[in-house]
Amino acid sequence: MGRQRYLNKQPLEIARASLLRAAGRLTTSELVPVEEALGRVTAESAIAKNSVPHYHGAAMDGIALRAEDTFGASEGHPMTFQSGTPDSQERPFSYVDTGNALPPWANAVVMIERVFTGDAPERSPSSSGSLPAVSADDGCCDPGESAGHAGHSHADAAFASEPVEGSSAQTIHLRGASAPWQHVRLVGEDVVASEPLLPRGHHVRPYDVGALLAAGVHEVAVRPRPVVAILPTGGELIQPGDEPRPGRVIEFNSRMIASFVREWGGAPRRLEPVRDDLPEMRVRIKAALAEADVLCIIAGSSAGQHDFTVEALSGFGEILAHGIDVMPGKPASIMAVAGEGGGAPRASVAIGVPGYPVSAAVICRELLEPLLAHLLGACAPDRPRVKAVVPRKLPSRLGQEEFVRVTLGQVADRLIVSPLGRGAGAITTMVKADGFVRVPPLVEGVNAGEEVDVELLRPLEDVLGTIVVTGSHDLTLGVLEDVLKAEFPRYKLATSPVGSLSGLLALGRNEAHVAATHLLDPETGVYNLPDIERLLEGVPVVIVNLVVREQGLIVAPGNPLGLTCVKDLTGDGVRFVNRQSGAGTRVLLDYLLERDDIDPDSIVGYEREEFTHMSVAVAVGSGLVDVGLGVQSAAVALGLDFVPIDREDYDLVLRADFAESEAGRALLSVIRGEAFRAAVEKLSGYETSRTGQKK
Amino acid sequence: MGRQRYLNKQPLEIARASLLRAAGRLTTSELVPVEEALGRVTAESAIAKNSVPHYHGAAMDGIALRAEDTFGASEGHPMTFQSGTPDSQERPFSYVDTGNALPPWANAVVMIERVFTGDAPERSPSSSGSLPAVSADDGCCDPGESAGHAGHSHADAAFASEPVEGSSAQTIHLRGASAPWQHVRLVGEDVVASEPLLPRGHHVRPYDVGALLAAGVHEVAVRPRPVVAILPTGGELIQPGDEPRPGRVIEFNSRMIASFVREWGGAPRRLEPVRDDLPEMRVRIKAALAEADVLCIIAGSSAGQHDFTVEALSGFGEILAHGIDVMPGKPASIMAVAGEGGGAPRASVAIGVPGYPVSAAVICRELLEPLLAHLLGACAPDRPRVKAVVPRKLPSRLGQEEFVRVTLGQVADRLIVSPLGRGAGAITTMVKADGFVRVPPLVEGVNAGEEVDVELLRPLEDVLGTIVVTGSHDLTLGVLEDVLKAEFPRYKLATSPVGSLSGLLALGRNEAHVAATHLLDPETGVYNLPDIERLLEGVPVVIVNLVVREQGLIVAPGNPLGLTCVKDLTGDGVRFVNRQSGAGTRVLLDYLLERDDIDPDSIVGYEREEFTHMSVAVAVGSGLVDVGLGVQSAAVALGLDFVPIDREDYDLVLRADFAESEAGRALLSVIRGEAFRAAVEKLSGYETSRTGQKK
Repeated sequence: MGRQRYLNKQPLEIARASLLRAAGRLTTSELVPVEEALGRVTAESAIAKNSVPHYHGAAMDGIALRAEDTFGASEGHPMTFQSGTPDSQERPFSYVDTGNALPPWANAVVMIERVFTGDAPERSPSSSGSLPAVSADDGCCDPGESAGHAGHSHADAAFASEPVEGSSAQTIHLRGASAPWQHVRLVGEDVVASEPLLPRGHHVRPYDVGALLAAGVHEVAVRPRPVVAILPTGGELIQPGDEPRPGRVIEFNSRMIASFVREWGGAPRRLEPVRDDLPEMRVRIKAALAEADVLCIIAGSSAGQHDFTVEALSGFGEILAHGIDVMPGKPASIMAVAGEGGGAPRASVAIGVPGYPVSAAVICRELLEPLLAHLLGACAPDRPRVKAVVPRKLPSRLGQEEFVRVTLGQVADRLIVSPLGRGAGAITTMVKADGFVRVPPLVEGVNAGEEVDVELLRPLEDVLGTIVVTGSHDLTLGVLEDVLKAEFPRYKLATSPVGSLSGLLALGRNEAHVAATHLLDPETGVYNLPDIERLLEGVPVVIVNLVVREQGLIVAPGNPLGLTCVKDLTGDGVRFVNRQSGAGTRVLLDYLLERDDIDPDSIVGYEREEFTHMSVAVAVGSGLVDVGLGVQSAAVALGLDFVPIDREDYDLVLRADFAESEAGRALLSVIRGEAFRAAVEKLSGYETSRTGQKK
Repeated sequence: MGRQRYLNKQPLEIARASLLRAAGRLTTSELVPVEEALGRVTAESAIAKNSVPHYHGAAMDGIALRAEDTFGASEGHPMTFQSGTPDSQERPFSYVDTGNALPPWANAVVMIERVFTGDAPERSPSSSGSLPAVSADDGCCDPGESAGHAGHSHADAAFASEPVEGSSAQTIHLRGASAPWQHVRLVGEDVVASEPLLPRGHHVRPYDVGALLAAGVHEVAVRPRPVVAILPTGGELIQPGDEPRPGRVIEFNSRMIASFVREWGGAPRRLEPVRDDLPEMRVRIKAALAEADVLCIIAGSSAGQHDFTVEALSGFGEILAHGIDVMPGKPASIMAVAGEGGGAPRASVAIGVPGYPVSAAVICRELLEPLLAHLLGACAPDRPRVKAVVPRKLPSRLGQEEFVRVTLGQVADRLIVSPLGRGAGAITTMVKADGFVRVPPLVEGVNAGEEVDVELLRPLEDVLGTIVVTGSHDLTLGVLEDVLKAEFPRYKLATSPVGSLSGLLALGRNEAHVAATHLLDPETGVYNLPDIERLLEGVPVVIVNLVVREQGLIVAPGNPLGLTCVKDLTGDGVRFVNRQSGAGTRVLLDYLLERDDIDPDSIVGYEREEFTHMSVAVAVGSGLVDVGLGVQSAAVALGLDFVPIDREDYDLVLRADFAESEAGRALLSVIRGEAFRAAVEKLSGYETSRTGQKK
């Protein structure tokens, strides 16, 4: 008797369309003060209450007057004006600063640089009433240009013919005419009262806050934030802070989803977890549907547990999808909540979110974000994308859309994709990833050399500041990154532990900036140089020592088996864990075995390989094995014991062009700096006397 | 005597670099709960407290056992296991669900689909100790595949040889061997305790919240939000909600800047405005510098007022820039705050932000956003960009960087740039703009046909949903947009009022989807069709009536001059305002003047041109002129009176390819729908009996 894993599997595209159709849109609205509306979505168009500007105002510092009074004024025929109004003066003027209201009788502004104090030496003929020629470039004239006018002499020095500066002279004269409405900002130049300012369905931005307030709008009708109830299921869940005993799972998914909801403009409501009990689940689902717009129920991701969630949901509506053709994210489900009318639940849809965190994240991005935008009647924000090259084939299964987490590095002007692990449980891959490569359902992966679109998960500036480090892994690389980020925040290290040998090869293929290596040459006993010469012939590189480090046996606390040397690995009941071939530590082991004439087959676990010092230490620490070869810092980090065996040079090989770049120089200066050395010396098993030295 | 407008003018690039250098970085940090850390910037690297997973767990629903016990099992040699532990059973097993802890004695999981109930018919030979061959595709086997095994017969039907389903049988048998650690999630598979999870200077995202909590981290050290004091200056300022009297300016800039600060991770502190009084300003500046990390002082933008701000600032440090070569934004200034040691002010820098709102927005984007990221030691988020074509030359002044606000429209597969007004006071242009085109300082504009980068101010999806409407303007277009957004939120209208004639020409050049037109053919008396035939020969279009509308004289309330017909425009003391040539209203006026044999020169103001009905109404409403020709709705919107003169067809001309597109069909369905008709009929001066009819 077989068992149907998914009852109604749907392609992602179709699942999303059904979800949005079933969800409908929010129709209610609420009035909020404009200053609190940032990021909210308008529910109707916002209308200007007053015009902007709301009065005729001076666009320059200067004097306001009637343009007609200036007609006829010129260099040869300056014209005199008196401070006052038309009631008291024949040719009145009034000082104005930029933004001042124009007096009701005035219709032009003359900028202060064009206003001269004192009586005019010659009176102009009376105005002809025709429009004068007016220089159009008042706004950008050289203010010094009128400083040389000394052709007129006046008895009173206080009334010398100079442009006014902070003066309040009661009599001035002009040497040119003005056009009506010159340097006046007219009512409604920007927007006219009653005109729409914002459409409905618009995300309010800082500019909009400014425009609304300027137009006299103090409150704006926005859509309420969609309430998303988040219901974790499973009796195994414990809360952050509870003691993490075996079999207990920290309930972090609901917090991650709540963060997404907040970021996307919704109001998350995290609910207490419910255990896997059908009647209890139904009670909790019913309550959640009644008080939220959307229900996200976080299911365990195995088929068995998931079926259970769908079973619990299915009484409340129609299951539109059970299983979605997307990786990660397949065990998701979608329900259209049933029931119309008075007793209808508030929620229109529910999403069964898989329990594996990466699946949960993908389902949130692909379903929940568009759902929230749709409910609000708005557009989802852009996802920045970038083109990058896939250096090696990226396989993918036909028939399902796959989101491959990748890191990116700009090496020799190409942006290079490096895929990360695909496990749906590895939430840290989402943290490490620079972006997603989306492989469509009808494509069997991406071929080597192809260019792909990468959906960025962090700013491009951050990605472009990535220094790609390949090769051997060591904990001092973490220290190096931290000091680098402190001194040069625009750079970060992306390390991929592939082993020394593969690292040098990747450097040769231009897939990394730096390779970390500790390869012992068995013939000469020299570290690194022989292999670099052999593998990177013709590739210009710079080699610097990062640290000299201790390699040794990582054993359980107290070294219960009393291991002291490599020979002891062959002892009865000793379970060993090895490193992958090509790793410097493996080369060292094989060298020592050969030197001491030990048969690898006599070591139990020789064929079991791990890829990092830390995973070797984990294998020892969790009792999987008794011993592994690795660095002291890994042993210390997990509270294990360490038996020193050898010292080795852990060097960085930099491509020469990178070493000369800004990033390369920053990295080298950090390696040679005091902060890095001091931080390394706090760890165990390192020596820094040659740190930063070129080889 | 001339006057130096800017004392220390700097290119934008250099001003920004000096600002960041002077600002330094924040060095303090605060611990916040991980769940509240969303969007904050880490102050140090965050370290995993526990490994993830923190125990060896089942990766499948099934049974846990010792792999060694299964060696030798096969189809032909099923092997029997008993529920229990090694103490009680020879070959023990224990049921496990995904995520359950592995019993300490077990080292492998067999998925439930591979587990059969009942005694095995044949016992296997005892294990040889060598590793068995194990099928690697357990995870994706068709669960139905083993349903047909009926080769063995058993008396007890309850123990029929079927895969277990929800069973708790105490005895089961297996038909294949398992590898050690098969279907086990090992401790630290994702991350090992003591490993760094997040680097410093990292913006915390929802994924990071998940990863931190999963790794037992409950609090994270983040940089405090940089406090930005925002000090408006000017005695003319009033608060939103105060009565907007002439000469009074609504103080909205500080609210816009506060919104920016909030969006960019800072803590805005808006201060009470200070009037233009040097000693008072100094007191307020001193207080602000003492309690904030950054001071933004909003100055009036005229040279006079700005000098005053710089004068007030200059006692507190070194003016690094006074005047920046950027348009808009030139009157900005930058100060490095002086003073080290105990009595030093908290702030390291101050920015003099220009008072014109568009200048203020540009200075915020170009200086304040990078400053906040720099203080936090983080990268600023990406600004999405898009390539678009400039259809007509975009001039720009040499020697200054210019940010030209533009709208975008995708017409016939090209994204087309349309520049908006360049006035620094027009905040609504920032609202209307889809993006900025940045013209570098050493370039004199962009040539026609060139492709440019556009920095987007709204999501691309929103831009791609833009229906570009050119030609004549009418208030019913606003109604149309609102109904369209309500029914099809992904579409919006971008209207540019260029007049009927220019609109048809732009449609012919493929620069718009729709042209709105009301052109009377003087010879035939027919609206639109003759001109469309003449100007769009060979261009396939669809013509539909939007409304029939009243044109007439817009006059002050009560029609004080008693105007009744076009002839009255020539009356003594009547000041008219005209529309630009090419506008349908202008064509109508000229037709009426010719018909009635009236000399345009006899109309005072015939040569003064406005571009929209609303600006004509504003000119009348603010007393600039006495009368203009326009539509009734514009008069009603501003509380003016209206004297009907004629009725005309206001039609939409759609490019045929657009009319057949999804957007075009959406637009037509809205035009023909009841909601649009009902909304138009609420306005005055329209008739909808032919609305939506094809011509």
